[in-house]
Amino acid sequence: MISVEEAQTKILSQIVRMPAEWLFLGASLGRTLSSDIVSSINLPPWNTSAMDGYAVVGADTEGASQNTPVHLTVVEEVQAGQMPNKKVGRGEAAKIMTGAPVPDGADAVVKIEEAKCSGKEVTLFDQVEVGAFIRKKGEAAASGERILKQGISIRPFEISMIASLGISQVSVYQKPRVAILATGNELADLHEERSLCQIYNSNSYGLAAQVVDAGGIPMLLGIARDNKADLAEKIARGRYADFIVISGGVSMGDYDFVKEVIEELGVKMIFWKVAMKPGRPLAFGTLFGKPLFGLPGNPVSSLVTFEQFVRPALLFAAGRDRLYRPVVSAVLEDTVKKHRGLRTFLRGIVSTREGKFFVRMTGDQDSGILLSMVKANAFIILPEETEQVSAGTEVSVQLLSDIGLC
Amino acid sequence: MISVEEAQTKILSQIVRMPAEWLFLGASLGRTLSSDIVSSINLPPWNTSAMDGYAVVGADTEGASQNTPVHLTVVEEVQAGQMPNKKVGRGEAAKIMTGAPVPDGADAVVKIEEAKCSGKEVTLFDQVEVGAFIRKKGEAAASGERILKQGISIRPFEISMIASLGISQVSVYQKPRVAILATGNELADLHEERSLCQIYNSNSYGLAAQVVDAGGIPMLLGIARDNKADLAEKIARGRYADFIVISGGVSMGDYDFVKEVIEELGVKMIFWKVAMKPGRPLAFGTLFGKPLFGLPGNPVSSLVTFEQFVRPALLFAAGRDRLYRPVVSAVLEDTVKKHRGLRTFLRGIVSTREGKFFVRMTGDQDSGILLSMVKANAFIILPEETEQVSAGTEVSVQLLSDIGLC
Repeated sequence: MISVEEAQTKILSQIVRMPAEWLFLGASLGRTLSSDIVSSINLPPWNTSAMDGYAVVGADTEGASQNTPVHLTVVEEVQAGQMPNKKVGRGEAAKIMTGAPVPDGADAVVKIEEAKCSGKEVTLFDQVEVGAFIRKKGEAAASGERILKQGISIRPFEISMIASLGISQVSVYQKPRVAILATGNELADLHEERSLCQIYNSNSYGLAAQVVDAGGIPMLLGIARDNKADLAEKIARGRYADFIVISGGVSMGDYDFVKEVIEELGVKMIFWKVAMKPGRPLAFGTLFGKPLFGLPGNPVSSLVTFEQFVRPALLFAAGRDRLYRPVVSAVLEDTVKKHRGLRTFLRGIVSTREGKFFVRMTGDQDSGILLSMVKANAFIILPEETEQVSAGTEVSVQLLSDIGLC
Repeated sequence: MISVEEAQTKILSQIVRMPAEWLFLGASLGRTLSSDIVSSINLPPWNTSAMDGYAVVGADTEGASQNTPVHLTVVEEVQAGQMPNKKVGRGEAAKIMTGAPVPDGADAVVKIEEAKCSGKEVTLFDQVEVGAFIRKKGEAAASGERILKQGISIRPFEISMIASLGISQVSVYQKPRVAILATGNELADLHEERSLCQIYNSNSYGLAAQVVDAGGIPMLLGIARDNKADLAEKIARGRYADFIVISGGVSMGDYDFVKEVIEELGVKMIFWKVAMKPGRPLAFGTLFGKPLFGLPGNPVSSLVTFEQFVRPALLFAAGRDRLYRPVVSAVLEDTVKKHRGLRTFLRGIVSTREGKFFVRMTGDQDSGILLSMVKANAFIILPEETEQVSAGTEVSVQLLSDIGLC
């Protein structure tokens, strides 16, 4: 058996980045840039006013005060979206709106609240510094400047930035397509009539949602029954996906045919077992040149192992560099016993009190109990060598989202 | 001017939850349940084996050990997906696979690794406790049990849980539709030829992505020019949305007609200014019975005020109870000066070192500089009364996502 980290390293060594595709900017939220964004314009394209006010020659205001105000002649008014028609000379000013280009000659803007205007004359009561309330040409982005680097995830902020450069399409990494196959005679699918001896297929839907959450496109291959022919036929349908994920059938039971079938299909196995709980029977290899994951069939084991192994692989394929969920230190509020030799992932609820993290278990940790998974916002990670952790001990906790912090 | 909290309270008092809609389970990721999920089945539907092994009568193993093993007769084999044909009596056992129903009469399962089988006989070397490796009927979900409460956000875990109950459609809150209108003569849209005196419209695209991120559906109304007729015509197109968001035109400038126009259209104004920076000129009211936000036109101000005011409103409408991003305490690494009287939101980079949060500024905080927004993973929030905060001080920091923690 290999450790969780060894397994993650072996997996990532087999993953390649997806090729690039062009997307309309508005559809690129959550994707990752596959090439740099370089500005081809200056932003702002000219010196612009940051305020509604008067564009003036700073030197004209020298010595201005309440008692010795300065009077300037307003030569024109410049609205946003207009170019100035006139220069501003000594003794002159131009009324100017926020975002409008500053006329040649002017080198400062006085806020409208600080000026008194009467007809063609404006009176100022204070000195202004050269450059005041002027946004310099190119200060937000200079022509030729690299604005965003390849590998950056596109949030609303990046979309606004890219649009401001006049760029309406971006090159991003393609989304990986992930074939998902459930296995087992005991499974009925949601659209099927369930016979007395069956339970509903839940893994396919949980895994598909995890794929979407990790930026992939799920492709459901349905349920393969516990016989080699059906398994072989359905696994082969995964040939055109970028990843293949099979849940169940990877243990050592008499009817666990997945190993045999993928070997016949030509799999190159990388590992078969990971020293963790839940999730020990976890298979990874490549089939048809695609990464193939054999996840355990218990519902919680399937979700947990996806989070630790498949998700980072999908994020890497989709261009991300930050592959793992944040791990923080938290005070354990329960006393926990575990088996020596296995890294243990318990379902927990993290809360913050006085700036410190605390974590408690969500209840029954049997890997068939989804109810303790839906209550969780984190995994409590206990090291291999430990057999018991007492309440009050600091433990590592992997946060499952920023939404669920109590 | 009202405070940020007063503004948030006044806004939320005007927001109603969206009505419910039915969605296929697989399409419900990220949505919020509008009614409880109650199980109509027992899960598992019968006592099932948690292991591959032998179903036995616990009492038969009393006193079993390496030296005094117990021999039982194997009466049948039960696979997952089959019902047992026979009872297990005293002195008998049934071979059983993980997930298969435990035959009547048996009350414990012995793992296959701990038994020795030869023909029709199985030999056990240890006592087993009654109930060992049996998953009890209904222990994962009992018929009639409320499994998930209304108001819960649907993650992959919830999807797996719901599927396991055989439920393929869920009732969720509808997504709010959000009309977005940019204003200003200086704006050219991404599909337009930009004239010399224009800059590109970026706010519409940033806001649209923020709407998607907050679970809404953006509806772009384009750009209204700085005249009352165009504004009135375009704002009126927002009539069929659930929210109206206008960026720009809400200041006191000579060409800021938004206030006049929405008053003519019959707006019920709630407030006009908030004591914050960026974002002071922020308008909120209701028009056509829909919440209307007038956001400032500077690109960063627009993004910041959306985060503080529009996002929580959309989350509430879409059924969420957790409306605000997590705020943590962090050590400020720069010394910052600010204007007294305004709550200030600075763009920051939060990092963790030795379990503590640290935050530094991203650079130029002018509200025209998007570059310092795309570098940020947090807002540093400085209180109204403060004029200077020294490096080393603990400050409040609003995290923008869990992805960007350094």
